[in-house]
Amino acid sequence: MVDILHRIGIRATPEAVTHALSTADGVAGWWSATTTGDGGRGGRLSVPFDDPTHPYVIEVVDLDPGVSVRWRVVAGPPEWVGTHVEFRLSRPDDRTVVLFRHQGWAEPVEFMHHCSTKWATYLLSLREHLETGSGRPRPHDLKIDDWG
Amino acid sequence: MVDILHRIGIRATPEAVTHALSTADGVAGWWSATTTGDGGRGGRLSVPFDDPTHPYVIEVVDLDPGVSVRWRVVAGPPEWVGTHVEFRLSRPDDRTVVLFRHQGWAEPVEFMHHCSTKWATYLLSLREHLETGSGRPRPHDLKIDDWG
Repeated sequence: MVDILHRIGIRATPEAVTHALSTADGVAGWWSATTTGDGGRGGRLSVPFDDPTHPYVIEVVDLDPGVSVRWRVVAGPPEWVGTHVEFRLSRPDDRTVVLFRHQGWAEPVEFMHHCSTKWATYLLSLREHLETGSGRPRPHDLKIDDWG
Repeated sequence: MVDILHRIGIRATPEAVTHALSTADGVAGWWSATTTGDGGRGGRLSVPFDDPTHPYVIEVVDLDPGVSVRWRVVAGPPEWVGTHVEFRLSRPDDRTVVLFRHQGWAEPVEFMHHCSTKWATYLLSLREHLETGSGRPRPHDLKIDDWG
Protein backbone atom coordinates (compact mmCIF):
# COMPACT_ATOMS: atom_id res chain seq x y z
CA MET A 1 0.00 0.00 0.00
CA VAL A 2 1.24 3.45 -0.92
CA ASP A 3 -0.33 6.81 -0.15
CA ILE A 4 -0.54 10.26 -1.69
CA LEU A 5 0.34 12.88 0.93
CA HIS A 6 -0.07 16.66 0.92
CA ARG A 7 -0.12 19.61 3.33
CA ILE A 8 -1.62 23.04 2.79
CA GLY A 9 -2.38 26.06 4.97
CA ILE A 10 -5.58 28.01 4.44
CA ARG A 11 -6.61 31.33 5.95
CA ALA A 12 -10.07 30.13 6.94
CA THR A 13 -11.58 28.56 10.04
CA PRO A 14 -11.46 24.78 10.56
CA GLU A 15 -15.26 24.84 10.38
CA ALA A 16 -15.21 26.52 6.96
CA VAL A 17 -12.66 23.97 5.75
CA THR A 18 -14.82 21.14 7.09
CA HIS A 19 -17.82 22.52 5.20
CA ALA A 20 -15.82 22.67 1.96
CA LEU A 21 -14.83 19.00 2.39
CA SER A 22 -18.15 17.47 3.40
CA THR A 23 -21.00 19.16 1.53
CA ALA A 24 -22.02 19.30 -2.11
CA ASP A 25 -21.82 23.09 -2.41
CA GLY A 26 -18.50 23.07 -0.59
CA VAL A 27 -16.91 20.42 -2.81
CA ALA A 28 -18.38 22.13 -5.89
CA GLY A 29 -16.30 25.18 -5.01
CA TRP A 30 -12.93 23.51 -5.53
CA TRP A 31 -13.07 19.92 -6.90
CA SER A 32 -15.90 19.49 -9.44
CA ALA A 33 -18.29 22.36 -10.05
CA THR A 34 -21.25 20.05 -10.69
CA THR A 35 -21.00 18.06 -7.45
CA THR A 36 -24.35 16.99 -6.00
CA GLY A 37 -25.54 14.88 -3.09
CA ASP A 38 -26.30 14.96 0.60
CA GLY A 39 -22.94 15.30 2.28
CA GLY A 40 -22.71 15.13 6.03
CA ARG A 41 -21.65 12.04 7.95
CA GLY A 42 -22.69 8.91 6.07
CA GLY A 43 -23.84 11.00 3.11
CA ARG A 44 -22.75 10.45 -0.46
CA LEU A 45 -21.55 12.99 -2.98
CA SER A 46 -21.65 12.54 -6.75
CA VAL A 47 -18.63 14.22 -8.32
CA PRO A 48 -18.59 14.28 -12.13
CA PHE A 49 -15.30 14.33 -14.02
CA ASP A 50 -14.63 13.25 -17.60
CA ASP A 51 -17.77 11.19 -18.11
CA PRO A 52 -20.88 12.87 -16.67
CA THR A 53 -22.80 9.59 -16.78
CA HIS A 54 -20.22 7.94 -14.50
CA PRO A 55 -19.40 10.43 -11.76
CA TYR A 56 -17.04 9.64 -8.95
CA VAL A 57 -19.05 8.82 -5.81
CA ILE A 58 -17.60 9.41 -2.37
CA GLU A 59 -19.12 8.59 0.99
CA VAL A 60 -18.31 10.81 3.96
CA VAL A 61 -17.47 7.98 6.37
CA ASP A 62 -16.07 10.14 9.18
CA LEU A 63 -16.80 13.73 10.00
CA ASP A 64 -15.51 15.52 13.08
CA PRO A 65 -16.17 19.19 12.33
CA GLY A 66 -13.07 21.32 12.65
CA VAL A 67 -10.90 18.24 13.22
CA SER A 68 -11.10 15.72 10.40
CA VAL A 69 -13.04 14.44 7.40
CA ARG A 70 -12.69 11.03 5.82
CA TRP A 71 -14.10 9.84 2.50
CA ARG A 72 -14.45 6.37 1.05
CA VAL A 73 -14.43 6.15 -2.75
CA VAL A 74 -17.52 4.19 -3.82
CA ALA A 75 -17.26 4.75 -7.57
CA GLY A 76 -14.62 6.23 -9.86
CA PRO A 77 -11.48 5.01 -11.59
CA PRO A 78 -10.78 1.34 -10.79
CA GLU A 79 -7.60 2.31 -8.93
CA TRP A 80 -9.65 4.57 -6.65
CA VAL A 81 -12.57 2.36 -5.71
CA GLY A 82 -12.27 1.30 -2.07
CA THR A 83 -9.52 3.82 -1.29
CA HIS A 84 -9.92 6.47 1.40
CA VAL A 85 -9.18 10.17 1.38
CA GLU A 86 -8.47 11.70 4.76
CA PHE A 87 -8.19 15.36 5.73
CA ARG A 88 -6.86 16.17 9.21
CA LEU A 89 -7.04 19.78 10.38
CA SER A 90 -4.87 21.73 12.80
CA ARG A 91 -4.48 25.40 13.66
CA PRO A 92 -0.81 26.35 14.16
CA ASP A 93 -1.40 30.05 13.43
CA ASP A 94 -4.13 32.06 11.68
CA ARG A 95 -4.22 29.31 9.06
CA THR A 96 -5.98 25.99 9.16
CA VAL A 97 -3.46 23.38 8.07
CA VAL A 98 -4.87 20.43 6.15
CA LEU A 99 -2.94 17.16 6.25
CA PHE A 100 -4.14 15.19 3.25
CA ARG A 101 -3.78 11.45 2.67
CA HIS A 102 -5.24 9.40 -0.19
CA GLN A 103 -4.62 5.92 1.09
CA GLY A 104 -5.17 2.41 -0.14
CA TRP A 105 -3.58 2.48 -3.59
CA ALA A 106 -2.60 -1.07 -4.52
CA GLU A 107 0.42 -0.08 -6.62
CA PRO A 108 2.35 3.11 -7.42
CA VAL A 109 1.12 3.10 -11.02
CA GLU A 110 1.71 6.01 -13.41
CA PHE A 111 -1.88 7.17 -12.85
CA MET A 112 -1.04 7.56 -9.15
CA HIS A 113 1.78 9.96 -10.06
CA HIS A 114 -0.75 11.98 -12.08
CA CYS A 115 -3.31 11.98 -9.27
CA SER A 116 -0.72 13.13 -6.73
CA THR A 117 0.12 16.26 -8.73
CA LYS A 118 -3.55 16.80 -9.54
CA TRP A 119 -4.50 16.61 -5.84
CA ALA A 120 -1.92 19.34 -5.15
CA THR A 121 -3.59 21.61 -7.70
CA TYR A 122 -7.03 20.84 -6.25
CA LEU A 123 -5.81 21.64 -2.72
CA LEU A 124 -4.51 24.97 -4.07
CA SER A 125 -7.99 25.37 -5.58
CA LEU A 126 -9.53 24.62 -2.14
CA ARG A 127 -7.38 27.39 -0.68
CA GLU A 128 -8.39 29.85 -3.41
CA HIS A 129 -12.04 28.92 -2.95
CA LEU A 130 -11.91 29.56 0.80
CA GLU A 131 -9.66 32.62 0.75
CA THR A 132 -11.06 34.44 -2.29
CA GLY A 133 -14.44 32.83 -2.98
CA SER A 134 -13.21 31.63 -6.36
CA GLY A 135 -11.59 28.21 -6.69
CA ARG A 136 -10.71 26.20 -9.78
CA PRO A 137 -13.06 23.20 -9.72
CA ARG A 138 -13.36 21.09 -12.81
CA PRO A 139 -13.91 22.14 -15.65
CA HIS A 140 -11.79 25.16 -14.69
CA ASP A 141 -9.03 23.02 -13.17
CA LEU A 142 -5.37 23.55 -13.95
CA LYS A 143 -4.29 20.98 -16.53
CA ILE A 144 -1.01 19.32 -15.65
CA ASP A 145 -0.28 16.78 -18.38
CA ASP A 146 -1.69 14.82 -21.34
CA TRP A 147 -4.18 13.13 -19.00
CA GLY A 148 -5.79 16.36 -17.83
CA MET B 1 9.89 3.24 2.68
CA VAL B 2 7.40 5.63 1.16
CA ASP B 3 7.79 7.81 -1.92
CA ILE B 4 6.55 11.13 -3.21
CA LEU B 5 5.19 10.72 -6.74
CA HIS B 6 4.25 13.30 -9.39
CA ARG B 7 3.61 13.56 -13.12
CA ILE B 8 3.72 16.66 -15.32
CA GLY B 9 3.68 17.34 -19.05
CA ILE B 10 5.89 20.08 -20.45
CA ARG B 11 5.90 21.54 -23.97
CA ALA B 12 9.66 21.30 -24.36
CA THR B 13 12.07 18.72 -25.72
CA PRO B 14 13.36 15.90 -23.49
CA GLU B 15 16.82 17.40 -23.96
CA ALA B 16 15.68 20.80 -22.65
CA VAL B 17 14.04 19.08 -19.66
CA THR B 18 17.23 17.12 -19.00
CA HIS B 19 19.25 20.34 -19.03
CA ALA B 20 16.87 21.95 -16.52
CA LEU B 21 17.30 18.97 -14.18
CA SER B 22 21.04 18.45 -14.34
CA THR B 23 22.83 21.82 -14.58
CA ALA B 24 23.19 24.75 -12.22
CA ASP B 25 21.65 27.31 -14.55
CA GLY B 26 18.83 24.89 -15.37
CA VAL B 27 17.97 24.15 -11.73
CA ALA B 28 18.27 27.87 -10.91
CA GLY B 29 15.39 28.50 -13.31
CA TRP B 30 12.81 26.60 -11.30
CA TRP B 31 13.99 25.28 -7.89
CA SER B 32 16.39 27.72 -6.21
CA ALA B 33 17.50 30.82 -8.07
CA THR B 34 20.96 30.82 -6.47
CA THR B 35 21.90 27.24 -7.40
CA THR B 36 25.57 26.74 -8.19
CA GLY B 37 27.85 23.81 -9.01
CA ASP B 38 29.05 21.61 -11.79
CA GLY B 39 26.07 19.51 -12.75
CA GLY B 40 26.50 16.75 -15.30
CA ARG B 41 26.86 13.11 -14.37
CA GLY B 42 28.64 12.74 -11.05
CA GLY B 43 28.55 16.50 -10.52
CA ARG B 44 27.21 18.21 -7.45
CA LEU B 45 24.83 21.13 -7.21
CA SER B 46 24.53 23.45 -4.23
CA VAL B 47 20.93 24.54 -3.82
CA PRO B 48 20.30 27.17 -1.12
CA PHE B 49 16.96 27.34 0.68
CA ASP B 50 16.20 28.87 4.08
CA ASP B 51 19.76 28.99 5.39
CA PRO B 52 22.27 30.19 2.75
CA THR B 53 25.17 28.81 4.81
CA HIS B 54 23.68 25.30 4.67
CA PRO B 55 22.46 24.73 1.12
CA TYR B 56 20.98 21.48 0.00
CA VAL B 57 23.57 19.51 -1.97
CA ILE B 58 22.54 17.03 -4.62
CA GLU B 59 24.70 14.73 -6.69
CA VAL B 60 23.63 13.85 -10.22
CA VAL B 61 24.18 10.10 -9.88
CA ASP B 62 22.54 9.08 -13.15
CA LEU B 63 22.08 11.07 -16.31
CA ASP B 64 20.70 9.66 -19.54
CA PRO B 65 19.94 12.76 -21.64
CA GLY B 66 16.35 12.81 -22.85
CA VAL B 67 15.51 9.69 -20.82
CA SER B 68 16.17 10.07 -17.11
CA VAL B 69 17.97 11.98 -14.38
CA ARG B 70 18.61 10.75 -10.86
CA TRP B 71 19.84 12.75 -7.88
CA ARG B 72 21.18 11.65 -4.53
CA VAL B 73 20.67 14.09 -1.68
CA VAL B 74 24.06 14.66 -0.01
CA ALA B 75 23.07 17.50 2.33
CA GLY B 76 19.78 19.07 3.33
CA PRO B 77 17.03 18.38 5.86
CA PRO B 78 17.81 15.23 7.91
CA GLU B 79 14.79 13.46 6.39
CA TRP B 80 16.24 14.07 2.91
CA VAL B 81 19.86 13.03 3.32
CA GLY B 82 20.46 9.77 1.48
CA THR B 83 17.16 9.89 -0.39
CA HIS B 84 17.00 9.88 -4.19
CA VAL B 85 15.01 12.02 -6.60
CA GLU B 86 14.31 10.43 -9.96
CA PHE B 87 12.92 12.01 -13.13
CA ARG B 88 11.92 9.69 -15.97
CA LEU B 89 10.99 11.27 -19.29
CA SER B 90 8.65 10.12 -22.05
CA ARG B 91 7.14 11.74 -25.12
CA PRO B 92 3.49 10.72 -25.59
CA ASP B 93 2.61 13.81 -27.69
CA ASP B 94 4.18 17.24 -28.19
CA ARG B 95 4.85 17.30 -24.47
CA THR B 96 7.65 15.70 -22.52
CA VAL B 97 6.08 13.89 -19.60
CA VAL B 98 8.12 13.82 -16.40
CA LEU B 99 7.51 10.98 -13.96
CA PHE B 100 8.87 12.18 -10.64
CA ARG B 101 9.77 10.07 -7.63
CA HIS B 102 11.40 11.22 -4.39
CA GLN B 103 12.23 7.90 -2.81
CA GLY B 104 13.78 6.66 0.40
CA TRP B 105 11.80 8.53 3.04
CA ALA B 106 11.99 6.54 6.27
CA GLU B 107 8.55 7.54 7.54
CA PRO B 108 5.53 9.46 6.20
CA VAL B 109 6.14 12.35 8.59
CA GLU B 110 4.23 15.64 8.41
CA PHE B 111 7.23 17.25 6.67
CA MET B 112 6.86 14.67 3.89
CA HIS B 113 3.28 15.85 3.32
CA HIS B 114 4.61 19.40 3.00
CA CYS B 115 7.40 18.38 0.63
CA SER B 116 4.98 16.48 -1.60
CA THR B 117 2.81 19.56 -2.18
CA LYS B 118 5.90 21.74 -2.50
CA TRP B 119 7.38 19.43 -5.16
CA ALA B 120 4.14 19.80 -7.15
CA THR B 121 4.52 23.57 -7.11
CA TYR B 122 8.18 23.30 -8.13
CA LEU B 123 7.28 20.99 -11.02
CA LEU B 124 4.72 23.57 -12.14
CA SER B 125 7.58 26.09 -11.85
CA LEU B 126 9.75 23.79 -14.01
CA ARG B 127 7.01 23.80 -16.63
CA GLU B 128 6.68 27.61 -16.52
CA HIS B 129 10.46 27.97 -16.74
CA LEU B 130 10.67 25.78 -19.84
CA GLU B 131 7.50 26.99 -21.57
CA THR B 132 7.70 30.72 -20.84
CA GLY B 133 11.29 31.33 -19.73
CA SER B 134 10.11 32.46 -16.32
CA GLY B 135 9.73 29.92 -13.52
CA ARG B 136 9.18 30.45 -9.81
CA PRO B 137 12.40 29.29 -8.15
CA ARG B 138 12.97 30.17 -4.52
CA PRO B 139 12.69 32.96 -3.27
CA HIS B 140 9.84 33.51 -5.74
CA ASP B 141 8.25 30.14 -4.95
CA LEU B 142 4.57 29.72 -4.23
CA LYS B 143 4.08 29.45 -0.47
CA ILE B 144 1.77 26.65 0.52
CA ASP B 145 1.57 26.62 4.32
CA ASP B 146 3.14 27.89 7.57
CA TRP B 147 6.36 26.07 6.68
CA GLY B 148 6.88 27.93 3.42
